[in-house]
Amino acid sequence: MSLISKDITDIENILALNPRISKHAHVVPSAETKQNKKHWKRNGDRSCTTCPPRKNNFEDIKHTTLGERGALREAARCLKCADAPCQKSCPTQLDIKSFITSIANKNYYGAAKAILSDNPLGLTCGMVCPTSDLCVGGCNLYATEEGPINISGLQHFATETFKQMAIPQIRDPSLPKVDSLPDGYRSKVALIGCGPASISCATFLARLGYTNLDIFEKGQYFGGLSSSEIPQYRLPYDVVSFEVKLMTDLGVKVHFNKALSKSSGFTLESLKTEGYKAIFVGIGLPNPKRIPIFEELTEETGFYTSKSFLPKVTAASKIGMCSCKSTLPQLTGNVIVLGAGDTAFDCATSALRCGARKVFVVFRKGFTNIRAVPEEMDLAREEKCELLPFMSPHKVIIKGGHIRAMEFLRTEQDDDGKWVEDEDQLVRLKANTVISAFGSGLSDPDVMEAMAPIKLNKYGLPEVDDVTMQTSEPSVFCGGDIAGVAQTTVESVNDGKQASWFIHKYLQSLHGESVPSEPALPKFFTPIDQVDVSVEFCGLKFENPFGLASAPPTTSSAMMRRAFEMGWGFGLTKTFSLDKACDIVTNVSPRIVRGTTSGHVYGPGQGAFLNIELISEKTAAYWCQSVNELKRDFPEKIIIASIMCSYDKDDWTELAKMAEAAGADALELNLSCPHGMGERGMGLACGQDPELVRNICHWIRAAVKIPFFAKLTPNVTNIVDIARAAQEGNADGVTATNTVSGLMNLNSKGEAWPRVGREKLTTFGGVSATGGIDSADAGLQFLQAGASVLQVGSAVQNQDFTLIADYVLGLKTLLYLKSLDLEGWDGQSPPTPVHQLGKLVPAILKMLGKELPNFGPYKAKKETILDEHLQKTDLLSDDNKPPAHSPHNVPKKPIPKVKDIIGQALTKIGPYNNLDNEQQVVALIDPEMCINCGKCYMTCNDSGYQAITFDPETHLPMVTDNCTGCNLCLSVCPIIDCIKMVTRTTPHSPKRGIPLGQQPVLKGIQVA
Amino acid sequence: MSLISKDITDIENILALNPRISKHAHVVPSAETKQNKKHWKRNGDRSCTTCPPRKNNFEDIKHTTLGERGALREAARCLKCADAPCQKSCPTQLDIKSFITSIANKNYYGAAKAILSDNPLGLTCGMVCPTSDLCVGGCNLYATEEGPINISGLQHFATETFKQMAIPQIRDPSLPKVDSLPDGYRSKVALIGCGPASISCATFLARLGYTNLDIFEKGQYFGGLSSSEIPQYRLPYDVVSFEVKLMTDLGVKVHFNKALSKSSGFTLESLKTEGYKAIFVGIGLPNPKRIPIFEELTEETGFYTSKSFLPKVTAASKIGMCSCKSTLPQLTGNVIVLGAGDTAFDCATSALRCGARKVFVVFRKGFTNIRAVPEEMDLAREEKCELLPFMSPHKVIIKGGHIRAMEFLRTEQDDDGKWVEDEDQLVRLKANTVISAFGSGLSDPDVMEAMAPIKLNKYGLPEVDDVTMQTSEPSVFCGGDIAGVAQTTVESVNDGKQASWFIHKYLQSLHGESVPSEPALPKFFTPIDQVDVSVEFCGLKFENPFGLASAPPTTSSAMMRRAFEMGWGFGLTKTFSLDKACDIVTNVSPRIVRGTTSGHVYGPGQGAFLNIELISEKTAAYWCQSVNELKRDFPEKIIIASIMCSYDKDDWTELAKMAEAAGADALELNLSCPHGMGERGMGLACGQDPELVRNICHWIRAAVKIPFFAKLTPNVTNIVDIARAAQEGNADGVTATNTVSGLMNLNSKGEAWPRVGREKLTTFGGVSATGGIDSADAGLQFLQAGASVLQVGSAVQNQDFTLIADYVLGLKTLLYLKSLDLEGWDGQSPPTPVHQLGKLVPAILKMLGKELPNFGPYKAKKETILDEHLQKTDLLSDDNKPPAHSPHNVPKKPIPKVKDIIGQALTKIGPYNNLDNEQQVVALIDPEMCINCGKCYMTCNDSGYQAITFDPETHLPMVTDNCTGCNLCLSVCPIIDCIKMVTRTTPHSPKRGIPLGQQPVLKGIQVA
Repeated sequence: MSLISKDITDIENILALNPRISKHAHVVPSAETKQNKKHWKRNGDRSCTTCPPRKNNFEDIKHTTLGERGALREAARCLKCADAPCQKSCPTQLDIKSFITSIANKNYYGAAKAILSDNPLGLTCGMVCPTSDLCVGGCNLYATEEGPINISGLQHFATETFKQMAIPQIRDPSLPKVDSLPDGYRSKVALIGCGPASISCATFLARLGYTNLDIFEKGQYFGGLSSSEIPQYRLPYDVVSFEVKLMTDLGVKVHFNKALSKSSGFTLESLKTEGYKAIFVGIGLPNPKRIPIFEELTEETGFYTSKSFLPKVTAASKIGMCSCKSTLPQLTGNVIVLGAGDTAFDCATSALRCGARKVFVVFRKGFTNIRAVPEEMDLAREEKCELLPFMSPHKVIIKGGHIRAMEFLRTEQDDDGKWVEDEDQLVRLKANTVISAFGSGLSDPDVMEAMAPIKLNKYGLPEVDDVTMQTSEPSVFCGGDIAGVAQTTVESVNDGKQASWFIHKYLQSLHGESVPSEPALPKFFTPIDQVDVSVEFCGLKFENPFGLASAPPTTSSAMMRRAFEMGWGFGLTKTFSLDKACDIVTNVSPRIVRGTTSGHVYGPGQGAFLNIELISEKTAAYWCQSVNELKRDFPEKIIIASIMCSYDKDDWTELAKMAEAAGADALELNLSCPHGMGERGMGLACGQDPELVRNICHWIRAAVKIPFFAKLTPNVTNIVDIARAAQEGNADGVTATNTVSGLMNLNSKGEAWPRVGREKLTTFGGVSATGGIDSADAGLQFLQAGASVLQVGSAVQNQDFTLIADYVLGLKTLLYLKSLDLEGWDGQSPPTPVHQLGKLVPAILKMLGKELPNFGPYKAKKETILDEHLQKTDLLSDDNKPPAHSPHNVPKKPIPKVKDIIGQALTKIGPYNNLDNEQQVVALIDPEMCINCGKCYMTCNDSGYQAITFDPETHLPMVTDNCTGCNLCLSVCPIIDCIKMVTRTTPHSPKRGIPLGQQPVLKGIQVA
Repeated sequence: MSLISKDITDIENILALNPRISKHAHVVPSAETKQNKKHWKRNGDRSCTTCPPRKNNFEDIKHTTLGERGALREAARCLKCADAPCQKSCPTQLDIKSFITSIANKNYYGAAKAILSDNPLGLTCGMVCPTSDLCVGGCNLYATEEGPINISGLQHFATETFKQMAIPQIRDPSLPKVDSLPDGYRSKVALIGCGPASISCATFLARLGYTNLDIFEKGQYFGGLSSSEIPQYRLPYDVVSFEVKLMTDLGVKVHFNKALSKSSGFTLESLKTEGYKAIFVGIGLPNPKRIPIFEELTEETGFYTSKSFLPKVTAASKIGMCSCKSTLPQLTGNVIVLGAGDTAFDCATSALRCGARKVFVVFRKGFTNIRAVPEEMDLAREEKCELLPFMSPHKVIIKGGHIRAMEFLRTEQDDDGKWVEDEDQLVRLKANTVISAFGSGLSDPDVMEAMAPIKLNKYGLPEVDDVTMQTSEPSVFCGGDIAGVAQTTVESVNDGKQASWFIHKYLQSLHGESVPSEPALPKFFTPIDQVDVSVEFCGLKFENPFGLASAPPTTSSAMMRRAFEMGWGFGLTKTFSLDKACDIVTNVSPRIVRGTTSGHVYGPGQGAFLNIELISEKTAAYWCQSVNELKRDFPEKIIIASIMCSYDKDDWTELAKMAEAAGADALELNLSCPHGMGERGMGLACGQDPELVRNICHWIRAAVKIPFFAKLTPNVTNIVDIARAAQEGNADGVTATNTVSGLMNLNSKGEAWPRVGREKLTTFGGVSATGGIDSADAGLQFLQAGASVLQVGSAVQNQDFTLIADYVLGLKTLLYLKSLDLEGWDGQSPPTPVHQLGKLVPAILKMLGKELPNFGPYKAKKETILDEHLQKTDLLSDDNKPPAHSPHNVPKKPIPKVKDIIGQALTKIGPYNNLDNEQQVVALIDPEMCINCGKCYMTCNDSGYQAITFDPETHLPMVTDNCTGCNLCLSVCPIIDCIKMVTRTTPHSPKRGIPLGQQPVLKGIQVA
């Protein structure tokens, strides 16, 4: 007999892979699992000892790359430490904690601004920094099982997102205009070499106000080594030109084909003659170090140095870098790379892309002596390059004019730690190509002579003061590799930054001007920073809509002072009362606990706090005197006194007058504290009754002239009734809302937390939710929903007062972006590209690879498809060009004011009956983004409609006609935009089970 | 003039390291940062090329080890995939998704049960499995930036926590008692070798009911290779004896000093003669593979095989393994380890602990051919072992009776991929010791002859069927290394498991009994599984208190059927109404969205959902017929009909009678749906008015005899009033509560989600919170707070129906643990040991290392202290003994029933005035657990009392006398129990700012 309460066969088939509880242990022979697991394998197949096809493949291989979801997750994980060691370990002293805070708050411009303020090559560095030796090396999360933060990935994501906004750099608008600056700022400054050091130096000089800045570059592209020697799969040219564009936004000029050279007459002296008052030399180390055995070798024989090899590779693979067309060096067979620095590993992975069958990285010392950071070495190891330690180059074997092999001597460390070569131990390695990556130096006399008269040290490099970056010539400064300290891009950037200040100081001194003793280099600015976020409300002008709620962050007025100094727009005192009430306010402890709404997550970023804290323990006198002091010192800030009395006209009148007399801009009536005060006839005891609320408001209106607001409790049947009562009492507005009454956190003995005293007693507390206002993103939502200004509490408890900088800038950005109206963006979130692991899915796979997941045999198949495609691809063809560097976006419409967006959402929110059940949607899953977890399938099965199938082999889900568009699948899908809801094209009618009007068939029940 | 609103100097000093917003870019020379960063470095110092001191140091070095916090975080991160590839890739087919679910839900016994059910050596495998090649290799999270789950760490944590519970194994109580089993179950079975394969095989046979199981072990310790060859820092002996204890709990006997040997007469034949009906051979591969050049070498000359070296190391470092006292092999100078398997790396890291100055791991092929998994190799690399590829052993150089060096021939792969040695390329490596780790085999004729008459294959190993594990002799089975398939412990375990079924089949066949064709091996059980969690409520017997709420998981009755089959105790229908209401129920789409309370987290594990779904689209006829069918098929389940009408007596009466007639056990009156129905006079429209509630309840009471409950809305001023009205109307109880009215998720355009149709309209929806009931842990809290039975909704939406198994077992465990009353435990959470990264802080550091953090120079100093201590330590001394294996815990008091804990917490919850503000607490920070993030310091500064100092060099926080015990620091501390609140010993009086009774000093304010 068929039952209506039994799944039909079709559904049972769909359910085949849904989790079930098994009664028994599972029995599968080991031999079978050995085979099966290969089908599901996602990590590298170790049994494959040959290199994966890499030829012509210049797709991003960085492990650090993050999509938006990954970035949000990683940013949320960051603890935002005090005196954070990441920042201390960054050569440019990036305020990492702050930029990660901004990412976590979806304020990507805010993050980019923090990054570019200290490091004008922030995107480049986010891609190439050896972070395990820098910021990440100090990450406190190394002390936890989840490990350190992917700082470079976050930096990359934020600056890349900002790049997509295409907004120009401007000078700090608070600085004097360049026209009004003294003459010294018009001094001509030459910067030689358009690499990271010069770009950084020129940028900071331009931010300071210098207007005659000329960069001279020997080549025909920007970026120096970043462009010519760092491969495309780690740093595309696009990135360099973005950063250079930001620099030229400030008026810096770049001149190509100008190489420092005695013979061609372009020298330090000639620049002086041309009127350059200061010169910055940032030419890197242009000459490869070669050892004698390579003396005679040429590229025709199969020999390259990294300095000859990598530029050939980048020229042929970096779109946009050269106008010339060139092709990759064509390598075959075995390639030997000599060296163990980062460059050696770049050569190794590049060699694979040029056709090498097998690459050996050979180095003199051991693994413990490798100079490259592990993350760099790992990329080569994953591509199956072989590593050979303890081998010193001895001889190159040439036959028929071509390299056939190389001989090495074994090295060993003697008991004193000295490295010795053993002439008796000769090791030979077959090879068709040898690439030496022994580092570089300055040896070209033509260049060296052009640097006269600056003094060189014993290494043939300029003598440079490592604080001022000044050479023996006061007008000549140096930075980057040539200056002898920097070994990384970011250190070169910092050299340029450091030099900029001392060039400034030097130039100003020439004009008899002094500069501050503490360096004051301007930060990064764009038109976004100029957006006005002030708002007027009840006749009060708020410089920004973010203020501190009456809560622990305003425990004392000294704290409010600090908050104002940081930039908060307004502040409420912690609630105070008359002496007779204050007298009885002595808090119990403990009293503030983490809420349990975020699950078993410990540390900052709590989704909620629960508290049983009372109003302020401090007296009304303290608070009134404090308000008075603060208002005197911060006349432009809005200071609101939060007050509370029991239902007594005289008390309310007295307290309100006292606060007004102290100079408070407004009052907030605390009619809503859910614990402690209520039992004393205060707080929520008043706020739940419209009558009391109305009367109290009347009393206050009669007592004071300043605006006042009633702070409402959410613990009412209809908050509108209470708000209306406040309005009727002539309140100027309401604060929505105080905490929600609650209790959480019972332990296994049934004791709550907080619990007080030996008796372990507790009471119902107030639950506050972070995510009320914890970002500009959330703030905007509240404004759109009708709020005029925004109070913050829990978010500060999780972090600190500096949050305000992020909120203000975040809101400016959201308003500015509205004026740009960028296609597909939601606030600061760009449209989600089709990606895996944050990396774009190659177009060819999108075309041919449909319906193939990214594991086991399917992954291999995709690699083959891509490989075949790449073999016949012209890397520099226009087809592969990224969309041309978008010119800067300019506002298409006026930038809205805060007042323009207040209540903007209200027209879309209404009664249920307004919603149209004829316009239905269904789910659509993108198989290219799918990670095959089947969460959509499971939730659809056990919480819905069994409308998603799940392929047992490919683990790809598919939506069937039974979809009712409930949206649960999208709600639990881990990948942003992998599932979208699209308009239903077929008619929809609900399944009634048994049609209306029909009777059920019932049978007798035998109860057990 | 001093201001009360300004921090005093003392406080300003404290604030020195609190985050500030800087106006300018930061300027620090690169050279300075190069030095500074060393102070903060947490990861390995690459500039240190010498091995860190390791001598005598056998502390846990596993990267996977997790503390409770780490485990909870990692478990929450797991997606709990459908048809999860981790399980498919595990040789024992562990239900990994389920055990991780249980960990996430703090049900550690539940997790251990799932693990030990499929793998009786679950703790061992959690410590030693090469997971990147097994479960982890298939993890779908490889497709996300955050990477795969640390499955072994979770397995280790759960089983280790269960080990601490010290609860015995019992047979599945639902199986027939052993006394009642047929004779076949009393057959004598011999298992040779007490390694993983035999322990597994014996365990499963004992679970099936076999009572004459004898394990014969040649040594004097349990565990075989697990004990003798896996070093203490990866697998302590303690773990093996725990697993053996669980096996002997079932009656298995182990006999020591019984080696398979023809000469001593202990052979397969002799066992047969002694009456053994089946024999399982799990002796591993006892003989090292040796190559001719080592023929003459002895340990005295400095030569070991892994088979001679590792047992010496374990015997001298594994406490509890041997009664004998032995010492570590004393190594000096260079040590060469030959081989590239896991064992080679164990030898390498062990050699360091025996005093080696430098270890070289030398292997024949390249890195791409290394057999060891990366995680194993990495341990050796981190300890600065050197790796040398492409070297084939050629000759050992001996001088003065001791090894001085070794010579190798270079190997190379020719063009056909064949490996060739080049006789001309001789490489010499100085060494004092050589350890060969070339794997092992079976070559001892004495053993081989003892295995007669079973057939051996060409490798000299038994011919074994890899499904049945049967040899050529029907009564002899084989498993583990000797059987030829297994290469890992877990595969050996699975061999034993696999064999157990076919031994069972074979033995039963001898007695003419057949076994099911689908293997049915019993799972792991303990007395916990026997705990009764049934509860009676309103005369209804609930087999467990967990049921499905009227929500999407009960969209159809076929879904309810599946839920009952999984074990849910009761279920509510989705709310239905009379035809006239149903007619207008057609849902809009989309309608269920993720809440934003968990922040920007995508995927399962959402902290909340918001929905605008209506009641069931299905008719009352459908639901009544369904209830009727379900009740017939599941008489022991409680089925509750959720019904809704507008405020009309006839309607309510008709519908209630209809449901009762169908056989519903009870009714739930939906008086609380917050959207859609309210506007039609139903749901919340009725539930906010006590008068209506009282009347409706009266009508229902008059209409039906079965119990009924009013489902309340939280959206009322005082829910007690509504509940009382229901009681007055003779309702049998209330359901607290329906969803909270809410709206979230506005996008940057001010459009909400869900939004319906082209018009993008929305309405206020209902917010449901996971963490209402999402675990036994949460369930217990609700019971303690007064609930009688528990409805679940959102948690199923995040996952699936199988959750019930976890909830029921979790509750059983919580009740059982109450009877054990374990010191310091909270529910299933053990007391937090003093740890870093989940690993115990060595006692000596606790004594001497106080106040030193774990980075930079301090970390180095700690290492030195530990090293000095270890040099003079007797590893096997009783001081180092772990607390003796606790005998099994037995209940000290009766196991409570569910009814006993209902409302248990209520006596501790009361009005605020009951709380004693004389009993104060203050914070106390444990510097040994601190990770130096300074979150406590920041929150205390900006949200409290500036009562925590932060050392600028050590980044250790310290609580000052100003602490008021607010508990915010603990609330944001990332490490469980790093901060504790302790009783305040000094008097506490609140700081009033200005004393009571004093007037404020006010001055005129000049408004800008």
